[in-house]
Amino acid sequence: MRLIVQKYGGTSVGSVERIKEVAKKIVASKKDGLDIVVVVSAMGGETDKLVEMAYEISPEPGKREMDMLLSSGERVSCSLLAMAIQNIGYKAASFTGRQVGILTDSAHTKARIKKIEAHKINRAFKEGLIVIVAGFQGIDEKENVTTLGRGGSDTSAVALASALNADLCEIYSDVEGVFTTDPNVEPEARKLNKVSYEEMMEMASSGAKILQIRAVQFAKKYNVPVYVKSSFKKGDGTLVTKEDSDMEEIEVSGITYDKDEAKVSIIGVPDKPGIASKIFNVVADANIVIDMIIQNISHEGLTDISFTVPKNDAKKSLELAKVVGKEIAAKDVKIDKNMSKISIIGAGMRSHSGIAAKMFRVLAKENINILMISTSEIKISCVIKNKYTELAVRVLHKAFGLGKENKRK
Amino acid sequence: MRLIVQKYGGTSVGSVERIKEVAKKIVASKKDGLDIVVVVSAMGGETDKLVEMAYEISPEPGKREMDMLLSSGERVSCSLLAMAIQNIGYKAASFTGRQVGILTDSAHTKARIKKIEAHKINRAFKEGLIVIVAGFQGIDEKENVTTLGRGGSDTSAVALASALNADLCEIYSDVEGVFTTDPNVEPEARKLNKVSYEEMMEMASSGAKILQIRAVQFAKKYNVPVYVKSSFKKGDGTLVTKEDSDMEEIEVSGITYDKDEAKVSIIGVPDKPGIASKIFNVVADANIVIDMIIQNISHEGLTDISFTVPKNDAKKSLELAKVVGKEIAAKDVKIDKNMSKISIIGAGMRSHSGIAAKMFRVLAKENINILMISTSEIKISCVIKNKYTELAVRVLHKAFGLGKENKRK
Repeated sequence: MRLIVQKYGGTSVGSVERIKEVAKKIVASKKDGLDIVVVVSAMGGETDKLVEMAYEISPEPGKREMDMLLSSGERVSCSLLAMAIQNIGYKAASFTGRQVGILTDSAHTKARIKKIEAHKINRAFKEGLIVIVAGFQGIDEKENVTTLGRGGSDTSAVALASALNADLCEIYSDVEGVFTTDPNVEPEARKLNKVSYEEMMEMASSGAKILQIRAVQFAKKYNVPVYVKSSFKKGDGTLVTKEDSDMEEIEVSGITYDKDEAKVSIIGVPDKPGIASKIFNVVADANIVIDMIIQNISHEGLTDISFTVPKNDAKKSLELAKVVGKEIAAKDVKIDKNMSKISIIGAGMRSHSGIAAKMFRVLAKENINILMISTSEIKISCVIKNKYTELAVRVLHKAFGLGKENKRK
Repeated sequence: MRLIVQKYGGTSVGSVERIKEVAKKIVASKKDGLDIVVVVSAMGGETDKLVEMAYEISPEPGKREMDMLLSSGERVSCSLLAMAIQNIGYKAASFTGRQVGILTDSAHTKARIKKIEAHKINRAFKEGLIVIVAGFQGIDEKENVTTLGRGGSDTSAVALASALNADLCEIYSDVEGVFTTDPNVEPEARKLNKVSYEEMMEMASSGAKILQIRAVQFAKKYNVPVYVKSSFKKGDGTLVTKEDSDMEEIEVSGITYDKDEAKVSIIGVPDKPGIASKIFNVVADANIVIDMIIQNISHEGLTDISFTVPKNDAKKSLELAKVVGKEIAAKDVKIDKNMSKISIIGAGMRSHSGIAAKMFRVLAKENINILMISTSEIKISCVIKNKYTELAVRVLHKAFGLGKENKRK
């Protein structure tokens, strides 16, 4: 190994003491003769504090200003970390997103990385520096500060690993790795040694908070091996990598849940072509991500359309749906905020059949009503009532044999 | 008036509520049809907190990293202020030192502004924006983040006012203006309507904490009128401007004190040419600013050399003096940290004589021993024992008739 990128999350650099500990870890890696780029998040809690202040000032803070505000947190952690490394006697320097050439589009608060000017970091390596980069941020072509959205430091790390052709991207946080499900809900949950990019993507998009989904997309696209591990506990983590034959052997590798779902229903919609797209265009234009959609079978020329959105966007979605509802002469518009999404995920689904049927059967046995269903090649998600979330996770975890030692290493 | 620069200090933007108040003030100025650039400091206390963390991490934090760290505070205040203005319904945008083109040298933690690319702000004016600038910071030619030293936001403001050819630079802080002396020491102290650049510079360099001295130098060099006023209380402030005949009429316009002086004495030094310069070169190389110097009359080929340094630099100065002392075979090296400097300042000194004699007489009458003296065209400073500071201020304030309404308006 020649070059690694390490990313430390907010809790890992949450205090002066922890920053000193992280510095020791980094220096230990440096002693192995590696070139090291470290990406850091803001100190734990800082970003929330800044967001809170912004909303005390304005109910709708400008997004460009929000990015300027939030980008400050990573400057603090990255400069303190560089000082801590210097204090151990190693050469280090902190860099902002701009200074390492992270160029993004202009979608403030959820910008996408377009390009990384890798030569800037290579120059720093030539000076023998350990390079500490402020995660989560970049600049757009007009040199405005942009941020990559919550969890964006993961994406910074993977994108840097890709641009620098790193051998490995290590993601250190307060989780020990990727588990078969949330250990807080199911104590039998087991850490996985390996998951595929596709599985990790499905997990990230269906509630697991381990890696930002864009980071996994990036890793998949550029084939960057990502190693998720705890910065507090010793022991192995989970390698996120290309799918292999081991992974295909088992049906389901993980179960995720997301309690932050709200369901908007537009009732009694005239069933004409173009009506569904009208509704969804309006919602999408407000930058709200629709997750699942159901359109009922038409009855006397009228149909119902339901869709789920993140709970944060529920209020706005309802307002928009009401406006559109009026326009298209819908009979009613409703919202239900007590929704959860349960997903089972596994690369093995490609080669095993009957998994969906088994999932529905297991839930039905517990009298858990399934309100919406969506599937992908390697995932099945069901929307259920909030209150059944933990029960559903536990029965599915057991039914798919995830608690016991299964075949995947 | 067409264009003003306003600067708000840390206490003026010390909380969300205060930021909202400042936003209202700015909008009120905007309503007068002005183009406005606002320079802000970090929220009160934030910079101290960051400095503290840095020293918890390292006894000698790297200066480049320190600048990266400290520059974060102004990003927070400037983006929050821009949000607050937008929330009132006016267009505003926050900019870092880099984004408004503040280019400095590379002297981290005390960089000097070399150039400001004014076209960047003029472009923002064309879009109708109120421009909010993060004070205290810039970038050097290698695009490293630099800071301008404590109080550096004053300098940012004056430099921007100069580069933009502003009609006025308003400095808002928690002081109401420039007083004849510190009102906390002498309740009779009176606010001055006007002081000259030269007087203000002498005041700043001899203990008054109203404006950063570099800001005044900048203002003088480019003839920028600076108006110092309170952001909390109504009423007039003090205009810092070119000397005029009013100012020359009175002997003394202000009395300042500085309790942060330490005196280093090198005792029994062989009186050979070049020895003093050797001592002072070593101290200057460590970036310590020597204030006053006394070399005693030689006695049997030996002399004593004393100099004052800021108390913060006392320990280091003593170490350096000991090293040099050994080299030049000095008999002893001593330090006294209980020193104060009392200064009387006035443009009128140029045309009035006997002022120094009067100062010495007034102090002598109170049995206050003068340990060192230094003078400039418009200032006389005496080093005295710390404990006499307040007494000295009061008797001098009275003796020079500063408490009563004097001639200067």
